[in-house]
Amino acid sequence: MMDVFFIERDPYAPIRHCYPVSKILYEGKSEYQEIMVIESPHFGKVLVLDGVAQCDERFEFIYHEFISHVPLFAHPNPEDVLIIGGGDGGALREVLKHKEVKRAVLVDIDKQVIEVSKKFFPTMAVAFEDPRVIVLNEDGYKYVQDYEQEFDVIIVDSTDPVGFAHVLTTEEFFKYVYRALKDDGIYVGQTESIHYHADIVRRVQKSLRKVFPIVDLYTAVIPGYAGYWWTFSIASKKHPVREPSRDVNIQTKLYSADMHRHAFLPESFYQKILSGEY
Amino acid sequence: MMDVFFIERDPYAPIRHCYPVSKILYEGKSEYQEIMVIESPHFGKVLVLDGVAQCDERFEFIYHEFISHVPLFAHPNPEDVLIIGGGDGGALREVLKHKEVKRAVLVDIDKQVIEVSKKFFPTMAVAFEDPRVIVLNEDGYKYVQDYEQEFDVIIVDSTDPVGFAHVLTTEEFFKYVYRALKDDGIYVGQTESIHYHADIVRRVQKSLRKVFPIVDLYTAVIPGYAGYWWTFSIASKKHPVREPSRDVNIQTKLYSADMHRHAFLPESFYQKILSGEY
Repeated sequence: MMDVFFIERDPYAPIRHCYPVSKILYEGKSEYQEIMVIESPHFGKVLVLDGVAQCDERFEFIYHEFISHVPLFAHPNPEDVLIIGGGDGGALREVLKHKEVKRAVLVDIDKQVIEVSKKFFPTMAVAFEDPRVIVLNEDGYKYVQDYEQEFDVIIVDSTDPVGFAHVLTTEEFFKYVYRALKDDGIYVGQTESIHYHADIVRRVQKSLRKVFPIVDLYTAVIPGYAGYWWTFSIASKKHPVREPSRDVNIQTKLYSADMHRHAFLPESFYQKILSGEY
Repeated sequence: MMDVFFIERDPYAPIRHCYPVSKILYEGKSEYQEIMVIESPHFGKVLVLDGVAQCDERFEFIYHEFISHVPLFAHPNPEDVLIIGGGDGGALREVLKHKEVKRAVLVDIDKQVIEVSKKFFPTMAVAFEDPRVIVLNEDGYKYVQDYEQEFDVIIVDSTDPVGFAHVLTTEEFFKYVYRALKDDGIYVGQTESIHYHADIVRRVQKSLRKVFPIVDLYTAVIPGYAGYWWTFSIASKKHPVREPSRDVNIQTKLYSADMHRHAFLPESFYQKILSGEY
């Protein structure tokens, strides 16, 4: 079957990733999106939503370590964590490595993504049964509006901010996030790539700056995401974010205190991205 | 034509890049390789050798700035520069931005790559007529054996180190390079990606360490290269390489003194790559 390929259908990427496919393990459609699981040599199983690869067994740790540990280690004591999206369970697994975490609420609108992940990605969807976890299949945009001073860290691990995930990158949403965070809370969200989606990066950074006093951008190179030089927009009410505030006392593959610092771009280049000069 | 695609045929990449094609501008075959030029929306013209994209108009500056300016700015006075490969002219263009350079010798075995680049990539193959330039269509592996204490910087800008470019990454070749460099000379070569080709990175680094006293690794994220997190292996007889040794007084899009430093990985992660732990 080495001549069978899955070709991504990502209207926002100028290039398509073409994965060799050894098996098609699942094809379904939830209320919100098409869900597919394929197996690809070198990558292992790949979760595909609406024709776009979301994560693969081999490299999912990169995205999940960086979306989780940068905000959680920037925070001195992250007890209450909210994950919006993240139904694959990868970010949840990383969040729960922090013994400080007393409660992790995962709000993913699409129950079927969680079910598929539990079935096909047991090393990723490994933490759903942890007693600290609360899973809700609700609209994260609405959920966050009901809370005030509730969370230490809010992670938005959504699909691309186009289509139904777009509202999760608006200024209005960030105001709700700000309110739902405690006085020293930290927000993070994935904001696409530097090279293919600079307009999205700039738009989100601009909106965050209207709401939060500390806003920054960090990166990780994600093999499976067209654009590769992936950005995470981080916003903080009080704590600086470019350094871990605690010892990195957990097991990781790529994240470390050094890589935390290195994930942030030099200020001069960051400013060029913000201004549109790059 | 938005449904026409060029699908890369790279036996060493576990994923294939699939470029939308608006025009096929050139298809030919030289003595050494198949040469193709396509036009792809967003990327502009793309140079394809043996089915693998080598550079595109939109993003070629990243690779060419980093393969050139890191070694040239690490060197305090790079007067004599040798480029092996690099027939597209991109590295040559960057090298000649340094007013210190008195002579740039470009040795590309394949004359037809240079001709095609001159015809289709006028912004990249822009420097061939500079009076400081000597172009030779010879085998770089043999060429370098004839020189001793001749060059300040040697840049190996080759195709993937498999097939006929493999010899350019052997210990034997590095011994010739060492001899052809002046007493404070610097070598750099592209050594594929961290995630898809870690074995190549380790092999080259190991060979360089047998020959040079200072060996290091730096990176740039290249949208067009599957693997993305591209590595450059750099080796120096005397000068440290992690800092520019002179003012960055030239026009660049991404390279800067800050980005020079940032291109080098934190030591802890570099060691994990070398040891095979990552």
